[in-house]
Amino acid sequence: MGYTFNNLIEKKKHKQELSTQEIKWLIDSFVKNDIKDYQMSAMGMAIWFNGMSDKEIVDLTRSYVESGFVYDVSEIKGLKADKHSTGGVGDKTSLVLSPILASYGVNVCKMSGRGLGVTGGTIDKLESCPGWTSELNKDEFIQVIKKSHIGLVGQSDDIVPADKKMYALRDVTGTVDSIPLIAASIMSKKLTIEADSLVLDVKVGTGAFMKNIAEAEKLAKTMISIGEGYGRKVSVILSNMDKPLGKAIGNALEVKEAYDALLGKGPEDLIDVVTTAAGVTLVNVGLFTDIKEAILDVKNKLKTGEAAKYLKCFIEAQHGDFSVIENYDNHFTTKHKIEILASRDGYVDSQDAEIIGLISMDLGAGRKTKEDTIDFAAGIYLNKKDGEQVKRGDLVMTLYTNFDIQDSWIKRAENSFKIIDQPSSILNIYRIMR
Amino acid sequence: MGYTFNNLIEKKKHKQELSTQEIKWLIDSFVKNDIKDYQMSAMGMAIWFNGMSDKEIVDLTRSYVESGFVYDVSEIKGLKADKHSTGGVGDKTSLVLSPILASYGVNVCKMSGRGLGVTGGTIDKLESCPGWTSELNKDEFIQVIKKSHIGLVGQSDDIVPADKKMYALRDVTGTVDSIPLIAASIMSKKLTIEADSLVLDVKVGTGAFMKNIAEAEKLAKTMISIGEGYGRKVSVILSNMDKPLGKAIGNALEVKEAYDALLGKGPEDLIDVVTTAAGVTLVNVGLFTDIKEAILDVKNKLKTGEAAKYLKCFIEAQHGDFSVIENYDNHFTTKHKIEILASRDGYVDSQDAEIIGLISMDLGAGRKTKEDTIDFAAGIYLNKKDGEQVKRGDLVMTLYTNFDIQDSWIKRAENSFKIIDQPSSILNIYRIMR
Repeated sequence: MGYTFNNLIEKKKHKQELSTQEIKWLIDSFVKNDIKDYQMSAMGMAIWFNGMSDKEIVDLTRSYVESGFVYDVSEIKGLKADKHSTGGVGDKTSLVLSPILASYGVNVCKMSGRGLGVTGGTIDKLESCPGWTSELNKDEFIQVIKKSHIGLVGQSDDIVPADKKMYALRDVTGTVDSIPLIAASIMSKKLTIEADSLVLDVKVGTGAFMKNIAEAEKLAKTMISIGEGYGRKVSVILSNMDKPLGKAIGNALEVKEAYDALLGKGPEDLIDVVTTAAGVTLVNVGLFTDIKEAILDVKNKLKTGEAAKYLKCFIEAQHGDFSVIENYDNHFTTKHKIEILASRDGYVDSQDAEIIGLISMDLGAGRKTKEDTIDFAAGIYLNKKDGEQVKRGDLVMTLYTNFDIQDSWIKRAENSFKIIDQPSSILNIYRIMR
Repeated sequence: MGYTFNNLIEKKKHKQELSTQEIKWLIDSFVKNDIKDYQMSAMGMAIWFNGMSDKEIVDLTRSYVESGFVYDVSEIKGLKADKHSTGGVGDKTSLVLSPILASYGVNVCKMSGRGLGVTGGTIDKLESCPGWTSELNKDEFIQVIKKSHIGLVGQSDDIVPADKKMYALRDVTGTVDSIPLIAASIMSKKLTIEADSLVLDVKVGTGAFMKNIAEAEKLAKTMISIGEGYGRKVSVILSNMDKPLGKAIGNALEVKEAYDALLGKGPEDLIDVVTTAAGVTLVNVGLFTDIKEAILDVKNKLKTGEAAKYLKCFIEAQHGDFSVIENYDNHFTTKHKIEILASRDGYVDSQDAEIIGLISMDLGAGRKTKEDTIDFAAGIYLNKKDGEQVKRGDLVMTLYTNFDIQDSWIKRAENSFKIIDQPSSILNIYRIMR
């Protein structure tokens, strides 16, 4: 076809649009290793500087998708929905949202990767339940969904291999923070499973990858436009990640909090994000016409606690022992429990998601390298959240760990929040983009 | 030391200056393969976009130099000079300049690489003389210079290994055309041998890497500033490479033309460049105070032919048989000789260095890949040069080759020049920068 890497890199260096065929050739050649890592990393950096047009991004996403296996879930009858979060500290939204949607008869067909960072990913969290597995073949995946309306399959090597290879490279070459590359990476994985609604929860703040709203909006618009290019309905929620979501940060701790939320006892910020995502989804799939009405209906359903059984059913369908969550205290004990107390009277403020996330990783709840194992019981519980009133000596947060205690953890935990005289107000949701 | 590639690439992405220590760590780690090719190529691209400060460029050059072996030529007493050309079609300047300088008692201590492209490098050209070798150890190199005032040693693997590695990477990742990287690459090699004068001949035009004067001036300024950072006197000549230099393009053909030039029978444009470079050098080393005067002295010396013996002496000192050049026609015959004739009366114009260079490579005079061998007898002779008057049917150029004749060569050769009604004037030297 006469394409050469040299021609393509010259075009990108000089901000000329690459054609559909050129992008396909680029990605195919990269997967076949005809284009080398050292060439693709230079291309990644040229994209970091010069960006990509909407058309190029759709073409890149399509080339990613076509590099591997696509899940055919047409056997599942009825409505299908998917949701993705860009990730943040304490983010157990999927674990609450999926059972809610299931309770409306909407099938949640989800593919996830493992977490690398401050806490585990959804898969790691669910592995707190002994026996639970995300290694399902296509038939098992479909059977699980038929049984519980929810299925969660791990991202295998044959799913979007081009992005897998590209992501590993970006991670070590300074091109993670490129909106076209982030958008194509996220969307290519979501597009391998068909769904009637895709809701993307883009986290913004210190504990998230996107540090400001303008950047997050750019990413959101890019992903919506990829969805349009693919004829797929995509909605985006921009939500606050300056502070952790909910009170629990860890793995088993978060499954427990998700279950409690489904029983009507969830922290306000988590409920806010979950009900918004649920409301948007229910409108997208056509079960409601008005988002406010849909959200209200979801809130009422949460109060009844009836959606909780769908979490249990799903975890058991994927071979997990859910009783460990139901009897949490008997199963998840840690050698050490460190209590951080209020140093004065006032209101908790500025709990910092990034600092708290990093401490929780040090306690054993996350992975620093791919080889690290996760301690399911480790983590942090925020006994008080931003805006709550405390008296000097009140318990603000609790650290759980099986490692030997380090003084620095305590200092960092004490510095992860302030106590001020008047409570400041915080937005949980910045914007819904559809 | 706490440096990480990630920190450095973030700084470069955001146009923050890297410190001396950071650049040294970057290059050292790259040479040790702690920083991988795919990381360095991303850094190269970030440099392509954001450039480097003068300080960064000097630091990069120094790190290159310090990555390898440095030639100590302090044993050579007297003045030492070096000259480098960025390369062009028919550029045999060094072969004429070095003997001239030798005739003034100035020692020329030169290191060269092999050519990749339209014609061979200086080393390839000299290998036309059977037995001639550039593989000298330090002692042999010094002995040769002591004997003939000229020594030319090949660039061994232990000279500037960092640049060698970097250049191979830039070549396939779209970062060849970055002025900081070009300047550091050229200067690092020149700085491994001490000299009282360094004259850089930067070629500008279709047959050169630098296509316009503004870019060439930028490169020149950068190299002069590296020289200043190193306390080294560097002068730059910007010379015309829209058309080939001289009449001979090839390997043995060019050695022959150089020898003829030393005997007072050189083409005007070659003499112009050679005498300018010689004049600048003679002023730099302190033998003259006025450049015009120095150039005039060199021109007079060329007329006497007395410098020619220094070329012979040098080639023989490095084990070459110079008699093949003295008896050129007996030794360099080709199977085919193609004559290109004038199609009308007029003046030769717009001889295109790039096209002529590419044809000469096809005839066997250059290398397309590192593995190609060079045919010393192949090449092109311009029987008429730009501006010369011709009558229809006059011989304009002659192609020499041992390959089977291809029609396309003839067509391309015919299209490599025009014949116009009035001669247009051409500058050989654009600027001298000191």
